[in-house]
Amino acid sequence: MRNTARWAATMGLTAAAVCGPLTGSALATQSTPAALYAPSALVLTVGHGHDAATVTPERAVTLTCAPTASGTHPAAPQACAELRAAGGDFDALRPVDGVLCTKLYNPVVVTVEGVWQGKRVSYERAFANACVKDVYGGNVFSF
Amino acid sequence: MRNTARWAATMGLTAAAVCGPLTGSALATQSTPAALYAPSALVLTVGHGHDAATVTPERAVTLTCAPTASGTHPAAPQACAELRAAGGDFDALRPVDGVLCTKLYNPVVVTVEGVWQGKRVSYERAFANACVKDVYGGNVFSF
Repeated sequence: MRNTARWAATMGLTAAAVCGPLTGSALATQSTPAALYAPSALVLTVGHGHDAATVTPERAVTLTCAPTASGTHPAAPQACAELRAAGGDFDALRPVDGVLCTKLYNPVVVTVEGVWQGKRVSYERAFANACVKDVYGGNVFSF
Repeated sequence: MRNTARWAATMGLTAAAVCGPLTGSALATQSTPAALYAPSALVLTVGHGHDAATVTPERAVTLTCAPTASGTHPAAPQACAELRAAGGDFDALRPVDGVLCTKLYNPVVVTVEGVWQGKRVSYERAFANACVKDVYGGNVFSF
């Protein structure tokens, strides 16, 4: 099934490559074929505070999940697997079992912007402290 | 000057590493030191149409410019250099000389989300066609 979809996509690309030049452009060498897969590319940020509108992003990482997991996220393959399991719904990420966090209130806010499987993502979530943030999903927010 | 700044940042990190554990966390092994540089991490998308709110992103690439250029952007080092030259202002990107584009109206819209040198970026720009898009800056929007 997966291979069938890939072949179908490849055939589509071939058609685009053949028909593309008909549109004629001075930058024909920089042609941009139709994507073979729905793009999944995200930027995640974290900063201290509880409202992204006022928080300076202290760290920012990229996470690409298609065609392969990559990016500056420190655990990209695991983060992509967690997001796939959650159907791309960041709110569906659950804390991993067996980790105890301090109750210290030192809020951090995470933002996620970009595209997940072809749909735009704009997400923001505050956590009581960095430990609590890290345990949601296990890897996605741990950067 | 640059080295001085680096040393100062390193000293700051050392202090953070020494003082960090005082906050105590069950995930101490996943400690998150202060960044050594202002983050620059972006997701760029492109789709056919003239309004990002209604356009499906057909492609999305990541672009990280600090500490080194990386990402799924096909020309990350050049794109980062162009953005640095423009002071991170996407509107300041100028068309490269010597490229002629068709007048065909087949609009594409580019979006940029993420962080540039520690400041949040949310940018959108429509171009008459993909050729016109590619020539702005030369590499930034050519993906």
